[in-house]
Amino acid sequence: MDQIKYELPETEMPRQWYNLAADLPTQILPPLGPDGNPISPEMLAPVFPMNIIEQEVSTERWIDIPEEVRQLLAMWRPAPLFRARRLEKALGTPAKIFYKHEGMSPAGSHKPNTAIPQAWYNKQFGIERLTTETGAGQWGSALSFACSLIGLECKVFMVRISFEQKPFRRVMMETWGGKCVPSPSEETQAGRHILAEMPDTPGSLGIAISEAVEQAVTDPSGKTRYSLGSVLNHVMLHQTIIGLEAKKQLAMAGVKKPDVIIACCGGGSNFAGLAFPFVQDKINGDDIEIIAVEPKSCPTLTRGPFSYDFGDTAEMTPLLAMHTLGHNFVPPPIHAGGLRYHGMAPLVSQCVVEGLVKPKSYHQLKCYESAVMWARTEGFIPAPETSHAIAATIDAALQAKEEGKEKTIVMNWSGHGLMDLLGYEKYFSGQLADHELPQEDIDKGLAAIADLPNAPENKTGKW
Amino acid sequence: MDQIKYELPETEMPRQWYNLAADLPTQILPPLGPDGNPISPEMLAPVFPMNIIEQEVSTERWIDIPEEVRQLLAMWRPAPLFRARRLEKALGTPAKIFYKHEGMSPAGSHKPNTAIPQAWYNKQFGIERLTTETGAGQWGSALSFACSLIGLECKVFMVRISFEQKPFRRVMMETWGGKCVPSPSEETQAGRHILAEMPDTPGSLGIAISEAVEQAVTDPSGKTRYSLGSVLNHVMLHQTIIGLEAKKQLAMAGVKKPDVIIACCGGGSNFAGLAFPFVQDKINGDDIEIIAVEPKSCPTLTRGPFSYDFGDTAEMTPLLAMHTLGHNFVPPPIHAGGLRYHGMAPLVSQCVVEGLVKPKSYHQLKCYESAVMWARTEGFIPAPETSHAIAATIDAALQAKEEGKEKTIVMNWSGHGLMDLLGYEKYFSGQLADHELPQEDIDKGLAAIADLPNAPENKTGKW
Repeated sequence: MDQIKYELPETEMPRQWYNLAADLPTQILPPLGPDGNPISPEMLAPVFPMNIIEQEVSTERWIDIPEEVRQLLAMWRPAPLFRARRLEKALGTPAKIFYKHEGMSPAGSHKPNTAIPQAWYNKQFGIERLTTETGAGQWGSALSFACSLIGLECKVFMVRISFEQKPFRRVMMETWGGKCVPSPSEETQAGRHILAEMPDTPGSLGIAISEAVEQAVTDPSGKTRYSLGSVLNHVMLHQTIIGLEAKKQLAMAGVKKPDVIIACCGGGSNFAGLAFPFVQDKINGDDIEIIAVEPKSCPTLTRGPFSYDFGDTAEMTPLLAMHTLGHNFVPPPIHAGGLRYHGMAPLVSQCVVEGLVKPKSYHQLKCYESAVMWARTEGFIPAPETSHAIAATIDAALQAKEEGKEKTIVMNWSGHGLMDLLGYEKYFSGQLADHELPQEDIDKGLAAIADLPNAPENKTGKW
Repeated sequence: MDQIKYELPETEMPRQWYNLAADLPTQILPPLGPDGNPISPEMLAPVFPMNIIEQEVSTERWIDIPEEVRQLLAMWRPAPLFRARRLEKALGTPAKIFYKHEGMSPAGSHKPNTAIPQAWYNKQFGIERLTTETGAGQWGSALSFACSLIGLECKVFMVRISFEQKPFRRVMMETWGGKCVPSPSEETQAGRHILAEMPDTPGSLGIAISEAVEQAVTDPSGKTRYSLGSVLNHVMLHQTIIGLEAKKQLAMAGVKKPDVIIACCGGGSNFAGLAFPFVQDKINGDDIEIIAVEPKSCPTLTRGPFSYDFGDTAEMTPLLAMHTLGHNFVPPPIHAGGLRYHGMAPLVSQCVVEGLVKPKSYHQLKCYESAVMWARTEGFIPAPETSHAIAATIDAALQAKEEGKEKTIVMNWSGHGLMDLLGYEKYFSGQLADHELPQEDIDKGLAAIADLPNAPENKTGKW
């Protein structure tokens, strides 16, 4: 029998996260405050607990995973590494395709990998309630799940259009005890302000972030903090458990070094999770192609400039040095909700600037076609976000076939699509179309960041 | 760290299924044809391929699992055995609670355990297309998935009310290439007949079975067969891989013999899957309590007589000796769609007759309450069917606490509830009620089977 799954025992779960900030040839640029000067850790204190802020600014290479966090992660981790033998056969490729299955978590994606430590650190710090935003719902579900295990209240501002279109995401969060409200809401000043101006707005991630941050920082008890599911350094850090496990599992499969690493990339968290431990190897001389895949309709890495920009539409967050389509960017309504963010994790952006990571963009229809091929060979139905990684994996495998090379490809299967079948239905019934972002939208984004500090080539190493 | 998951390597996947028919103190009664005489295997040939009919009537104790089937099952099997440590702690029980997680399959439940071998045997026999029916959609999804792997067409008749209320189940099937039509349909004589009489009927499992069987047996090419996801002996057989794996995993956890085995029971397949290997131990003298859990609104084992009855409403199937509420039974609209069948697997029924298995029934609200407690401690959101097993497990654990006994409880976690969140939503918003089946409904069922051969106590051992 051909082995399909490479599984680590719980005792082999990594004991430390890997911090890429320690190894990047050039340090990432610091976040800037409203005055244009680097912000201090203390300035973030109303938003995040200090133990998480310490991780955010750390340049230590290895950071211990608390034992209690490992115990909670053991509910589904280590996640299996699969060999996609049936897909290989269907493609007739000499490539070996491995995928890390992050859809086995109770919330169905990689998001709990950071939701659990974030909830845990907040609890340790004496926090009683977390606020956050969610678009497609993956992150809101994951944080509700984590809070239910750790004993925190959880409040999720869900983009109104998603709240209405995906009522079952809300039910998931409620099942774990989370409270989910449509954003914009009447609960915050930011929400009321927007509702007064645009009563029929479908909402946006930018608005929801503003509401969640406001509710955290204005709680007079001081016991509420905000939690973010992507973009920030500590989120990337927590996700590296994916790649660290994958390395051990590849060794079990007899692979000394993979040739290609592939993951989809929205804010950067599942990509960083698989890729960063391999980026370290690449920095140390290994020949590895590392591909970040995004939609052509939200081409942050492939067409957005590297610049300082706000993380939210309302300009409440610090300025981050990243690839961006502009904080006023309104993404077309594609179904990969997790890939519709205007910005990108600074650490991932810096990898692209350094040439360590190659971004690639795909159209929606090709991604759904790839997802259906996947379901009919490998069985598991992928999330629309994950289908982007699958499209690139199929291309890489076909390229290996053309070249006659026995490449090893490792992909991050970031989550299942059982809560996102509406997109499949629209695909089958011909209701979906491709969308190439017009240059004028890119120009609008450029105009929005024109007055912000620019960082077109961060090769200076200066903070 | 406390171990949560007990995982077998693929090489330890069982090589044989266990056939309880070889060990039952009293043989089950044979199926009867329309003339009241036992049917011969040949009479089933238009419906099932002969290699499956051979399994259906076999009394061999061990039946080899074909290597190709094992290879396909390795896509998610062996399934992990979990220790529910967080639930134990929440209950303050000295009991050890283990659960077999069958929700990791691509279709999300235990159903692919039999869908894959059934599709494989049909393919071996030269069949090109399978028909089936589905209620809640678990079985139709599983068979579509299996057919996509094995290269068969799949046609699913889905009870109309479910087809309309759960459009995403249909999309799942289509993603795997299955074709799903609402039943009653215009495609069969049975369907047309019913639509002419009752154009607004919501449909029923009994009608859908009639349509699926008709379409299989009337295909002039002879290349279509029918597939059933529960009730029959060969289905129970295929599911025993669950219990056989669990035994090895319990040994890994240091458990010599469990004290209580619990699973929910609709047609009997997930129950038999976990329980039958332990029923064998019980027959051989082990002291094990084996509990089959059903809804109080469809109390087949707890209140239905043991008798011959039809498997479908239209009286097209052979007569089976089983516990039944009458083939005219119309179940109340509870959300555990998989537990709404009027009959029960003959092998499971016989276990109850023999006193080897104890049936127990629960109300819907208690089950949802248990499911929510589960989600907030163990993380995974259970299917409404599975919540019945959880309710009984919690009771058994609390009883152990009262008695101060360190019992070992093993439960079958038959599937996740991500496709059934509508029930949770109704539970949270107070729209669900308990439903105790009135005696007049039992009496109606008794009347419907009054003229059929009766088998109130099958202790004779005669066929």
